[in-house]
Amino acid sequence: MNLFSGLGAFPLTPIGPAGIDEAAFVGLVRRLVAGSVDMICPLGSTGGYPYLNRAERARVARLAVDAADGVPVVIGIGALATREVLELSADAQAAGASAVLLAPVSYQPLTEDEVFGLYEDVSAELSVPLCVYDNPRTTQFTFSDEFYGRVSRLPRVGSIKIPGVPEGIDAAVPHVQRLRALVPEHVTIGISGDPLAATGLLAGCDAWYSVVGGVLPEQALAITRAAQAGDRRRALALSEALETVWELMRRHGSMRVASALAEELGLVSKRNLPRPLRELDVDARVGLSGWVRAAGLVG
Amino acid sequence: MNLFSGLGAFPLTPIGPAGIDEAAFVGLVRRLVAGSVDMICPLGSTGGYPYLNRAERARVARLAVDAADGVPVVIGIGALATREVLELSADAQAAGASAVLLAPVSYQPLTEDEVFGLYEDVSAELSVPLCVYDNPRTTQFTFSDEFYGRVSRLPRVGSIKIPGVPEGIDAAVPHVQRLRALVPEHVTIGISGDPLAATGLLAGCDAWYSVVGGVLPEQALAITRAAQAGDRRRALALSEALETVWELMRRHGSMRVASALAEELGLVSKRNLPRPLRELDVDARVGLSGWVRAAGLVG
Repeated sequence: MNLFSGLGAFPLTPIGPAGIDEAAFVGLVRRLVAGSVDMICPLGSTGGYPYLNRAERARVARLAVDAADGVPVVIGIGALATREVLELSADAQAAGASAVLLAPVSYQPLTEDEVFGLYEDVSAELSVPLCVYDNPRTTQFTFSDEFYGRVSRLPRVGSIKIPGVPEGIDAAVPHVQRLRALVPEHVTIGISGDPLAATGLLAGCDAWYSVVGGVLPEQALAITRAAQAGDRRRALALSEALETVWELMRRHGSMRVASALAEELGLVSKRNLPRPLRELDVDARVGLSGWVRAAGLVG
Repeated sequence: MNLFSGLGAFPLTPIGPAGIDEAAFVGLVRRLVAGSVDMICPLGSTGGYPYLNRAERARVARLAVDAADGVPVVIGIGALATREVLELSADAQAAGASAVLLAPVSYQPLTEDEVFGLYEDVSAELSVPLCVYDNPRTTQFTFSDEFYGRVSRLPRVGSIKIPGVPEGIDAAVPHVQRLRALVPEHVTIGISGDPLAATGLLAGCDAWYSVVGGVLPEQALAITRAAQAGDRRRALALSEALETVWELMRRHGSMRVASALAEELGLVSKRNLPRPLRELDVDARVGLSGWVRAAGLVG
């Protein structure tokens, strides 16, 4: 089976005034191992990769591979300049990454030819599989279905990470089927955007690239396994139980919610996001706090 | 008079496979000195600041100050993480920058509180004036008029760089007047977005932060001086003469057009943008080439 299948969990990289909290990061990774996730994906958007420098990213990659205990580790190698991406790619492979994840990060909005050139240049240098990461909210670049097909034919590409599916299974199924027809068979399709992940998996996505899975791996795995078993009712009910979290993510961005959730559970310190990012505001935090207690996640 | 007045010209930082072309960069800065611009603004968006590493940016800042021959130099210090911005700010000041320029660069879209916090943290550490750089196209953050007012009251803020004005002087005047009423008197308002710069200056902007001025300083200065003298007809006619350039900028982004224009004039090498960015495509290039010859800019 393709490495890029099932539940990929994205841990935060807790960062305070003194730099990365390595002990907390290793704790998060071990929690994912204990939670039996299928992939551990450090230095994704949730892991704040673009806010860290090269040395910090190499260090985080090494810590993750050491703590992963054999679970496949997919490392984010995105950066603005192609030459930086190539350096980060070499570092991730040297650290023992099973695979890498690359979004077309932009400052000047990129053309399709520029994005294709980026993936072409990077995939030519890779020895491990690549997941193509489509995140229009952070990169300002939107993949067309045809462009997914073109990029996914490059060497080493093993998966595409799509930003979501239309709401409701009836609309999601033809969406995933259309993509499936454009993308080679050996390339998996993974959904991100946690609120619609159950729908995406039920509609035929092979993987869930999950933010919440980085903090609540058991809950995310239960949704994933129910969907993989075709148990639509159970998958949707388990997802519905997290609606408070989804709603906060829609409003405040999933990274800030994952940060607050991890703090509620005592996994990271109070200040843990790279400035200028700020932790969730008090009102949102109170709502989350109440949910965490009601869900029995803390005593 | 406030430093941030008149024509600010943004030179490219030519970068090829072997790194920064320092000789070409120094040549561009000297051309701006010879063209009598009011400010030289290296490491702006046109100068590709986010694609360069810290050492390269410190080097470019030093080269610029040395070559500027006393003309005020405004250095871009933007980066994703606040701690990086503070490092770059220290480097720019050590290099002898007259002032600095800061956009709220984002990956995770920023909230207003986060952007305010960034400017607060950075302005507290500055010894030189700061220009607040609003560039929604690259940062994904849009300043409201009220937010301009709030940020421009921070210490050291001397100017705000706005992304444009409504088309036509009748619409532009009330727009600039509204901003003027919200922003303290000692803070200048500068326009970017070259195609509407003449309109902006005529409508009351104090400065033009100019991309084309980095390559064609004489033409940009003529527009600026005509507008400053209140010669509406002449300012608009001089701007209209550059319509081919404006139209290419609207379609392909001003950085790619500046790069091609500089190459047409023999100021930079054929490959000069940081990958993954690509130089202007052939069709657009042919149009620009024809215009350059018709305008008598090359023999």
